[in-house]
Amino acid sequence: MPILFAFPKYESFARALESPGFSHGTLSIKHFPDGESLVTLQTDVKDKDVILVCGLDDADQKMAPLLFFTKTARELGAKSIGLVTPYLGYMRQDKRFNPGETVSSNIFAKFLSSLFDWLLTADPHLHRHESLDEIFTVPTTTLHASALLAAWIKKHIKKPIVIGPDEESRQWVQDVAQQADIPFVVLKKVRHGDKNVEITVPDIETYQDHTPVLVDDIISTAQTMIETIKHLNSLKTKPPICLGIHAVFAHDAYAKLKNSGVAEIVTTNTISHETNKIDVAPLFAQALEHKTN
Amino acid sequence: MPILFAFPKYESFARALESPGFSHGTLSIKHFPDGESLVTLQTDVKDKDVILVCGLDDADQKMAPLLFFTKTARELGAKSIGLVTPYLGYMRQDKRFNPGETVSSNIFAKFLSSLFDWLLTADPHLHRHESLDEIFTVPTTTLHASALLAAWIKKHIKKPIVIGPDEESRQWVQDVAQQADIPFVVLKKVRHGDKNVEITVPDIETYQDHTPVLVDDIISTAQTMIETIKHLNSLKTKPPICLGIHAVFAHDAYAKLKNSGVAEIVTTNTISHETNKIDVAPLFAQALEHKTN
Repeated sequence: MPILFAFPKYESFARALESPGFSHGTLSIKHFPDGESLVTLQTDVKDKDVILVCGLDDADQKMAPLLFFTKTARELGAKSIGLVTPYLGYMRQDKRFNPGETVSSNIFAKFLSSLFDWLLTADPHLHRHESLDEIFTVPTTTLHASALLAAWIKKHIKKPIVIGPDEESRQWVQDVAQQADIPFVVLKKVRHGDKNVEITVPDIETYQDHTPVLVDDIISTAQTMIETIKHLNSLKTKPPICLGIHAVFAHDAYAKLKNSGVAEIVTTNTISHETNKIDVAPLFAQALEHKTN
Repeated sequence: MPILFAFPKYESFARALESPGFSHGTLSIKHFPDGESLVTLQTDVKDKDVILVCGLDDADQKMAPLLFFTKTARELGAKSIGLVTPYLGYMRQDKRFNPGETVSSNIFAKFLSSLFDWLLTADPHLHRHESLDEIFTVPTTTLHASALLAAWIKKHIKKPIVIGPDEESRQWVQDVAQQADIPFVVLKKVRHGDKNVEITVPDIETYQDHTPVLVDDIISTAQTMIETIKHLNSLKTKPPICLGIHAVFAHDAYAKLKNSGVAEIVTTNTISHETNKIDVAPLFAQALEHKTN
């Protein structure tokens, strides 16, 4: 019977994954006065399959606890250790854009591969890598929230028009739109100089009576969404909805997006945030049951 | 010719280590808006021996940059990578004190061993481990600041009496005292219940005309030093001096110690702090020259 452990902020997500076949483990992460971490596994893991639930937003802060948790679990006799990470960080630097730069997606994947026996995640930001298998050396399973996004749109928005952020995301946006059986367009960005980017929404005048639904996999700085909303507001469209899978929200991005003229901001609970309205836990629970049976 | 790189806050320490045989490399550590690190090696390392200078105070914050720096240096063809770490963190949790606890000294040492080919440090906090070789799988060199401490005391304090923090440290304290040719005592701690510890200084009345010099390897919470100073003040000794190797100073420990009735606080520059008055860089420079010749 596998034991499920959760890192802080992922306890409720882990509880949603429990099934009659699983038991619940507890751990604590404390800090000594000098800042050093002390991880304690309060549940015996000897000869057990261990599953850790931990999103990898703020990944730098989690590296020490991840290392300590996994190595200690092995010392204490864990049979296997899997990682359930609703949000897989460090996937965006997938190339050496400038000489001497770290390709952190690859290095981080190798680091995780050295700690865990397998990994389960949802919608990792893959661009230059086609699949996680290119960078992980342990088996990975990738889940997709697109059907849940499509279902949410269908249920809550009367006449939606889905708007994707860029050509890169076209296939994924199309997938969401087709599952909801609604139209979609993809933003056009025209770069004027280094920082000035002009955003236009192709054919948006055709959809004047539709509600624009801006979708993206990660909402981080929200800069493109905010620019797009400005543009849509100037065209006097219906107030747009923003829909993202991973609620990263860097710095004050959430406050800025909230005040941009958006009608509603909706995310999934891969990262805990007050905008979470789509529950991906059932997706993970199903995959996990499949995996451990 | 080896190339010396330094992590932030260790640039001036690294400059002090440069010799005609070394060249100076530059790196940058930036953060994306979502907090993820981007390490860039701005100096070519192909076929070079690389030396990174980085203290391991605040070690959790440095794990991601350490991983990215070393793995990228290897990808870019570095011949070898050594770590010069004036302060080696994570040495105190050297035992599983309670069931399920991480023994972080061992795991952290293995982590560093997986990144570097060798390590050079000063006065690591060794208690249950006799030497770093027990926990590191790569060659390590340990330097000792005791002669520099002894020299500082001899030069600046007229009639000193050295006071060590506990029996554990007796040998080290004796070493400092003998090198300075001065007397020493070691604190006696009597525990009353869980939190109440009474501290006494054996035979201190014999040294009424001496200046107490409290020495320790790490000043972290400074709790023992503060208690000892209180006790000494109540005995109306001369105002004591506090002397530490590693200026960790957790939270408000420095402010508290400063206001405790201490005459002066003196540390070495293994961790940059305004109390640094003893320069250990020449010690490292010498060892490094020896190592790379």
